[in-house]
Amino acid sequence: MTGKLYLIPSPLGDCPIDNVIPVYIKHIINTIDIYIAEDVRTVRRYLKKAGIVKPVDELIFLILNEHTHGAEIGKLLNPLLEGKNIGLVSEAGVPAIADPGADIVRLAHEKNIDVIPLTGPSSILLAMMASGLNGQNFAFAGYLPVQKNDRIKQIRHLEKKSETENQTQIFIEAPYRNQHLITDIVDNCNPNTYLCIACDITLHTEYIKTKQIKDWNKNIPDINKRPAIFLIHKF
Amino acid sequence: MTGKLYLIPSPLGDCPIDNVIPVYIKHIINTIDIYIAEDVRTVRRYLKKAGIVKPVDELIFLILNEHTHGAEIGKLLNPLLEGKNIGLVSEAGVPAIADPGADIVRLAHEKNIDVIPLTGPSSILLAMMASGLNGQNFAFAGYLPVQKNDRIKQIRHLEKKSETENQTQIFIEAPYRNQHLITDIVDNCNPNTYLCIACDITLHTEYIKTKQIKDWNKNIPDINKRPAIFLIHKF
Repeated sequence: MTGKLYLIPSPLGDCPIDNVIPVYIKHIINTIDIYIAEDVRTVRRYLKKAGIVKPVDELIFLILNEHTHGAEIGKLLNPLLEGKNIGLVSEAGVPAIADPGADIVRLAHEKNIDVIPLTGPSSILLAMMASGLNGQNFAFAGYLPVQKNDRIKQIRHLEKKSETENQTQIFIEAPYRNQHLITDIVDNCNPNTYLCIACDITLHTEYIKTKQIKDWNKNIPDINKRPAIFLIHKF
Repeated sequence: MTGKLYLIPSPLGDCPIDNVIPVYIKHIINTIDIYIAEDVRTVRRYLKKAGIVKPVDELIFLILNEHTHGAEIGKLLNPLLEGKNIGLVSEAGVPAIADPGADIVRLAHEKNIDVIPLTGPSSILLAMMASGLNGQNFAFAGYLPVQKNDRIKQIRHLEKKSETENQTQIFIEAPYRNQHLITDIVDNCNPNTYLCIACDITLHTEYIKTKQIKDWNKNIPDINKRPAIFLIHKF
């Protein structure tokens, strides 16, 4: 019997665990001894906060980040082949979405290992729900290009796509570039295009607003350095 | 002061509430007297199961379904303008994704009402996490066409898109058409294309597998009439 790979979400920032993490996850973490994570310190802190009973020092932590490649990733799965369960934990939010976890999950399927996704907060999904934009057809495009010209080109491409495919376009930006991104969107999109800015989701400073570009124009919020998600749709 | 519109997720089927619903939601439902829902019976049952303290008969339920239009939708928001909170509850999963709730949310933004999305299970997101396919770039396309020829055309379109845009394509089907859909995918996609079939997510009969078409070919599972999500990616 192989072990199971549990996909364990974590909070999106400093908020009470019970706001976003179902009790079941507290139960599951007390049945797992081996974790795969990007940063050991973050996960140890999370497991303690989530109420793990076992001493954290007795757990095994395996590192998975953008420097982990090919054969190394395969090795991380060895305990599963020996019948042990593993928890894959994200830095913030759900594993394998917009983070390096997906490779591990695909490899687990190749080895016929059961993958069990657990419920928790995803800024992408929460922003999509709260935007009021088309939730029957939407796409997440990840990060926009860093170079201003490329970024503007991509914004225009996504705006056009939202119209031709009637598909909400969701994307993110490094928090210290938020203001540049909002300015580029407001300066380059149609006045009637809808933009949702969703920031600090699930935190007590949560800010989620959907307006047309012509209305944002008069009043651009300062969300510099705060984690944010952006959604656009031209109807 | 206007009230707040809470987006309240519900379980994806018959599973313990604590598996998928954070304790915070139990707290929130005890502060709300007015709910918007597709089906009153389902919501009453859910609220009781989730541990609502107030007698359910004292709550107000407003109906929102595919027959609710324009001016009627606007009226549903009136209690918010009077300072009362409202809970928007989905039949299963998260509100405003692949259900009629998004119109209410967009209208709430127009009226400058705070929209608070709460964490809960989304079959789309859980399937995306557990598929191991590209979680940096993915799209949800909703239901496929009912007519066989149109459906095959759409499957081919989505497969091509997954390759040219390196974007995982997610879609759903009415459960009683699952077997037809799987056959159409297996018969029409490239042998190397990846297909994830995710069925009964979060339930004790959960089944989630990602394989290449050439491997599915030999062994098509029977998931007739079970709620399912499908993801394809040609790399």
